[in-house]
Amino acid sequence: MAQTQKSLSCLDGVRVLDLSQFEAGPSCTEALAWLGAEVVKIENPKSGDPGRTVLTEPGRDAFYFLIFNANKKSVTIDLKSAAGKKLVLDMARTADVFVENFAPGAIERLGLGYDVLCKLNPGIVYAQVKGFGKGSSFESNLAFDMIAQATGGVMSISGEPDGRPIKPGPTLGDTGTGMLLCISILGALYEKKRTGKGQRLEVAMQDAMLHYIRLAFATQARKGGPVKRAGDQTVSGGNPPCGIFKCKGGGPNDYVYVYTSRANPEHWKRLLQVVGREDLIGDQRYATPADRTEREEEVNAIVSAWTSKHDKHEAMQIIGAAGIPAGAVLDTKELAEDRTFHDRGILQTMDHPQVKGYVMPTWPVRHDGTPVAVRAAPMLGQHSSEVLESWLGLSRHEIEGLAADKIITQRK
Amino acid sequence: MAQTQKSLSCLDGVRVLDLSQFEAGPSCTEALAWLGAEVVKIENPKSGDPGRTVLTEPGRDAFYFLIFNANKKSVTIDLKSAAGKKLVLDMARTADVFVENFAPGAIERLGLGYDVLCKLNPGIVYAQVKGFGKGSSFESNLAFDMIAQATGGVMSISGEPDGRPIKPGPTLGDTGTGMLLCISILGALYEKKRTGKGQRLEVAMQDAMLHYIRLAFATQARKGGPVKRAGDQTVSGGNPPCGIFKCKGGGPNDYVYVYTSRANPEHWKRLLQVVGREDLIGDQRYATPADRTEREEEVNAIVSAWTSKHDKHEAMQIIGAAGIPAGAVLDTKELAEDRTFHDRGILQTMDHPQVKGYVMPTWPVRHDGTPVAVRAAPMLGQHSSEVLESWLGLSRHEIEGLAADKIITQRK
Repeated sequence: MAQTQKSLSCLDGVRVLDLSQFEAGPSCTEALAWLGAEVVKIENPKSGDPGRTVLTEPGRDAFYFLIFNANKKSVTIDLKSAAGKKLVLDMARTADVFVENFAPGAIERLGLGYDVLCKLNPGIVYAQVKGFGKGSSFESNLAFDMIAQATGGVMSISGEPDGRPIKPGPTLGDTGTGMLLCISILGALYEKKRTGKGQRLEVAMQDAMLHYIRLAFATQARKGGPVKRAGDQTVSGGNPPCGIFKCKGGGPNDYVYVYTSRANPEHWKRLLQVVGREDLIGDQRYATPADRTEREEEVNAIVSAWTSKHDKHEAMQIIGAAGIPAGAVLDTKELAEDRTFHDRGILQTMDHPQVKGYVMPTWPVRHDGTPVAVRAAPMLGQHSSEVLESWLGLSRHEIEGLAADKIITQRK
Repeated sequence: MAQTQKSLSCLDGVRVLDLSQFEAGPSCTEALAWLGAEVVKIENPKSGDPGRTVLTEPGRDAFYFLIFNANKKSVTIDLKSAAGKKLVLDMARTADVFVENFAPGAIERLGLGYDVLCKLNPGIVYAQVKGFGKGSSFESNLAFDMIAQATGGVMSISGEPDGRPIKPGPTLGDTGTGMLLCISILGALYEKKRTGKGQRLEVAMQDAMLHYIRLAFATQARKGGPVKRAGDQTVSGGNPPCGIFKCKGGGPNDYVYVYTSRANPEHWKRLLQVVGREDLIGDQRYATPADRTEREEEVNAIVSAWTSKHDKHEAMQIIGAAGIPAGAVLDTKELAEDRTFHDRGILQTMDHPQVKGYVMPTWPVRHDGTPVAVRAAPMLGQHSSEVLESWLGLSRHEIEGLAADKIITQRK
């Protein structure tokens, strides 16, 4: 039975003018929308956010777009026309937050740079994502998720010890950056309640990556660098048994992660009981983390002998219940088919006029015990009339005029 | 020349009662501290946050701890004593935020569960991190970063296509979860300004991972699942050339990432010019993304022939300057030695009474153009007197009495 969802009201009344595209910016503004802000995407009338057309059939919004733009509104404005630009400037006067992640210099060329907007509205929180920071050697370079993961150290510490660098599956360069900007925006909004003033916020994707690999910097401080790739292990070096162990089935993800903590000697004892090797409890060959590190192969063989006879779900169940941290390596299909994610509202099935019944992960934090209500991403220009009326007080007649002049488009 | 740092005042006056440990909770409260909140860690007088002793010599705070606890205060209280518990309850009455990430059930056993604290202080934002969500099959299991990455789908989509799952180097299970909780805390604080009421916030590390692999869910919606590992590629499938290319040097990280976008045909043309193959511009064999996908090996060989003659920095410089997204695979040592990170305050050298001159990545978002000022993590019990005086109005005499009774410890 699915839990009742609730729209959050944390940011009730907060207006976000969103000129962002693809993922880093949109993931940030989507989190604001989930917290209850009114997020209005400004899109070009022709094709909108380029994310709409990533790997999809013509005329149908891409899953890519749907996933990063839930709970937002879409207003289409021709920014190259003087009248269109004026509309956006007028909207900026009434907005609390402005977000953009165009290529370096583009927003200034559009006439919507910080210097312009903060004069119109000193209360605006003006937030930007770029690939590289001001003062870096690559300040004006383009970046995408993978470029951030390459230049931000992430790839250098991900992969097999004897293999090449790999790009982790999560889009840390994009969503990881978006989340940090979101935190700063919320901090700036909180301060604005007191001061009435906005702030200028800037984050570079490369810089943001360093925040997520701080454990590697701790390791480097301890042991020198560069920090190496560690396969299934942690970059700080675990103590065996720690890692993935093959389970019955032999499929690409038929593994269970088992972690025994250095800080808790009980983990190893409990594990010996689970795998039916009580005879080794107290055995001096394996007594301390240092002993087990020395005999890593033997230790891992003891665990594998047991895991290979169980499927990963069973293995996780039994080892976990014995009080040892353990986790099956679950794939995206298994996750999507696990009813408990749907029941808990972590995955929700979306209702969209074009794309029926797709499943998307939603905001994972529970507020007062209930999942956040997710609304499908907007169709291009779906809210042009509504928003121009409510933000700028334009009349039906004025809106029709703008549409006739092709300054805006409306979806009927 | 290093930029002047500034302490942020976004959360001036916000009091955070922090019972969290290791990384998921501490990374969250550290971000709040960087935004200007007063974050007080409650630690046991004996050894404090177990993060203090991770891979370090006795009596010296671990780099692990230093990196996740900057800008906080430390108060040591014996929570097992009635008087100690009363102190924490009294602090909870005056706190805005409470954060904990103990094993399931532990905070309730300490008598500091949500039901207790929200009665004392209906304005408290009560935030918890667990491994698995309420209603999941593994609700009462323990989790650490790697368990979250295994069970949250991250490992299944990270690694070589024909290899085993790998655990990405970033501690996404910990810091990734902490950032999402931080966003919800800030949302709840914003709402509290209006309503005076707090909220209960809960996040599970497994659930949080789904937020970072949403691109894989978009891919699954499009192509079915499970989504496979893609090595150096994106899980949605790039179009060649896209990936890492070997550079001169032959070291483990001597690669450059080159990305040519499907959406921008200029990237491929520009790249052909860079690699001295203008002769192939317009060649029908490589004209469209589909053509290049069909001839992926040939296409990659064209690029490799050039990159193998340049070192990765040079390659990034030249390809990037030509307007093609490109990034050298940088390791942690190269990042730490890049002066521009220090000049920009992204990396700061810390002053700590025990551990001199360590380097740590700091909050990467610029507020009004300046880096956030980072203060070294507190010594155990460093702020016991100061905080008990300022939060609870205790007198010197009362504080000395608590210390004499071993309810608290003070650092002289």
